[in-house]
Amino acid sequence: MPSLSVPPPKCLQKPLVVPHRHMFGPGPSNVPPRILEAGANPVIGHMHPEIFEIMSDIKSGIQYMFQTQNKMTLAVSGTGHTAMECAIFNTVEPGDSVLAAVNGIWGSAKVNTIVAPPGGYLTNTDIEKALSKHRPALFFLAHGESSTGVLHPLDGIGQLCHKYNCLFLVDSVASIGGTPLYMDQQEMDILYTGSQKVLNAPPGTAPISFSERACQKVFNRRTKPVSFFLDLNWLANYWGCDDKPTRVYHHTGPVTAFYSLRESLAVLAEEGLENSWERHETVAEYFHAGLESMGLKLFVKEKVTRLPTVTTIVAPYGYDWKEITSYIMKTHNLEISGGLGPSVGLVLRVGLMGCNSSKANVDMVLAALRDALKHCHRSKV
Amino acid sequence: MPSLSVPPPKCLQKPLVVPHRHMFGPGPSNVPPRILEAGANPVIGHMHPEIFEIMSDIKSGIQYMFQTQNKMTLAVSGTGHTAMECAIFNTVEPGDSVLAAVNGIWGSAKVNTIVAPPGGYLTNTDIEKALSKHRPALFFLAHGESSTGVLHPLDGIGQLCHKYNCLFLVDSVASIGGTPLYMDQQEMDILYTGSQKVLNAPPGTAPISFSERACQKVFNRRTKPVSFFLDLNWLANYWGCDDKPTRVYHHTGPVTAFYSLRESLAVLAEEGLENSWERHETVAEYFHAGLESMGLKLFVKEKVTRLPTVTTIVAPYGYDWKEITSYIMKTHNLEISGGLGPSVGLVLRVGLMGCNSSKANVDMVLAALRDALKHCHRSKV
Repeated sequence: MPSLSVPPPKCLQKPLVVPHRHMFGPGPSNVPPRILEAGANPVIGHMHPEIFEIMSDIKSGIQYMFQTQNKMTLAVSGTGHTAMECAIFNTVEPGDSVLAAVNGIWGSAKVNTIVAPPGGYLTNTDIEKALSKHRPALFFLAHGESSTGVLHPLDGIGQLCHKYNCLFLVDSVASIGGTPLYMDQQEMDILYTGSQKVLNAPPGTAPISFSERACQKVFNRRTKPVSFFLDLNWLANYWGCDDKPTRVYHHTGPVTAFYSLRESLAVLAEEGLENSWERHETVAEYFHAGLESMGLKLFVKEKVTRLPTVTTIVAPYGYDWKEITSYIMKTHNLEISGGLGPSVGLVLRVGLMGCNSSKANVDMVLAALRDALKHCHRSKV
Repeated sequence: MPSLSVPPPKCLQKPLVVPHRHMFGPGPSNVPPRILEAGANPVIGHMHPEIFEIMSDIKSGIQYMFQTQNKMTLAVSGTGHTAMECAIFNTVEPGDSVLAAVNGIWGSAKVNTIVAPPGGYLTNTDIEKALSKHRPALFFLAHGESSTGVLHPLDGIGQLCHKYNCLFLVDSVASIGGTPLYMDQQEMDILYTGSQKVLNAPPGTAPISFSERACQKVFNRRTKPVSFFLDLNWLANYWGCDDKPTRVYHHTGPVTAFYSLRESLAVLAEEGLENSWERHETVAEYFHAGLESMGLKLFVKEKVTRLPTVTTIVAPYGYDWKEITSYIMKTHNLEISGGLGPSVGLVLRVGLMGCNSSKANVDMVLAALRDALKHCHRSKV
């Protein structure tokens, strides 16, 4: 046996130290002890009857959160990105045309985009024009656009898509649970989210649901999806969403992440969706009023299209936004963030999601912001 | 606002209950309290400096476990399957030829296979013949074939692959940490494993490493990989494996799963790789002797090719293997499993991996087996 050429690393001799921190950025958000502890339960098998029961609970919880009766409802073993790829890989075949209302990564499909101005949204007239022009197989829309703080209206878009024989795919990672959404009534075909926002579970699982219409396309495709790991035929069987009598080994589900996800859905069901929506809205209004009374400006002008979960604040004039977020992290142990993509340099972003959405937390953020504006450098202009 | 059409599910009103269980199947294995507790630390941001330090510790720990100096070493946010897809998606382009020593799922590449008899393995002569005939871009081999209990010899194969200008991809999900493996000295180009076997972390993260030669192919490909989520360009940046000065948001890393993975690598470094290899070998020999003294037969005839982590036992003659595994689960709260794929019906499989590999656990399994053979039905033959 040859000798080891790589010695045991010294850095692993130090104990793991993880700081407590107020997670008020666009996500992940704080995870309450109840949900963290659920995830510390012992590992059981990914094919044991007990995990199938937990997965069944998760499925019911997602159906409730999504307001859907879709049989094809499950959680992908990954993040929101994985869920997006699951949606695309299964529904889009090479040559299919896709229409996206935001930027995305779309494999070998032909992608057209319609772009809303930063802080704005698309009207149903804009959308119908684009559907009629491009005749896509799939239309993608982010409900809660956390980079700009826009809550995109959803009413009528599913119906428009179906008029043009197109599937309606919605990303609700940053919005669902914090604002009304009705998958079935609003005729969405695929809807996904992540575990780490309003649900307050650790990142690593991603609820997703497919309508009957989406399943028709998925299960009648001519080619196999490129990913075995995300192939809905296999996932459907693992999650007990097909009609087969037995489940076949596909991948080793992240069982402890399933425990946390189940617990986070139980917390949501206990509070009730409508109460959660109302709490997020009330807290957001209180927050927005507080910001404006400090002289700060909201990036999204139209009140009804402000995301109640992630607030974008116009970057205070004369300041370096990075100095503000760093100061608040250092002095208040509190995360808020700058912009992302089109909003870099333009905004500060504050997320108050799930258990973090409270007036006490708003007061904490406002105090931190006041303190930062007092102590950070201001250019003389 | 319309009213809710899906009420809160009753099943989520019940508390989450997870049984304690001896996880002696082919995986996942038991997770010790220290590693479970690490995963219950508070969530921090996926781009915070503290998580980058934890990821850097993980990288060092993987380099140690893999015995490699490869800069391109990281953990994929997913299971072993995800790591396999990461390897394939990044290295194989449409039209490339792949040679696989076992069955796999290979996208649009042209796949040839060389098949070893169940319980057997391929000689280097077999492999060279196939390499010379098919001239593949990539050769795939499972080091620990947990379905048959075979530990495949590795010496010389990397060198053969390189003689034929082919990359050597190794799946060590069921073996690494429990038996000698030297990524650099044995000239492997891509090596991956899962968190849930010898490492005793929960399933959900998958260590992977790429040699300089593999990186040459990955970063000079003509086409983009089909998956954005698994694109090594992005993953390398997120894990600080490239030379770029800043890290760009790619996906929300499963931070609590990173905590557990880091802790599991610390446990391995504390024991020392060679001690871990020796312990698994000693315990496996003790186990195999105990099985044979009960009159049971080992499925893998050749001693040196028996996997020390997962043992395959010839299904006892005259019994229904399902009755045995069910009886042991019910009576002893202990998981052992039947075969998988080619070994279904032929074997029982017992995994003793990481902290589960001890003589006390062997005694427990042997007692359970003796008890099962006494109480399960035996056909009169």
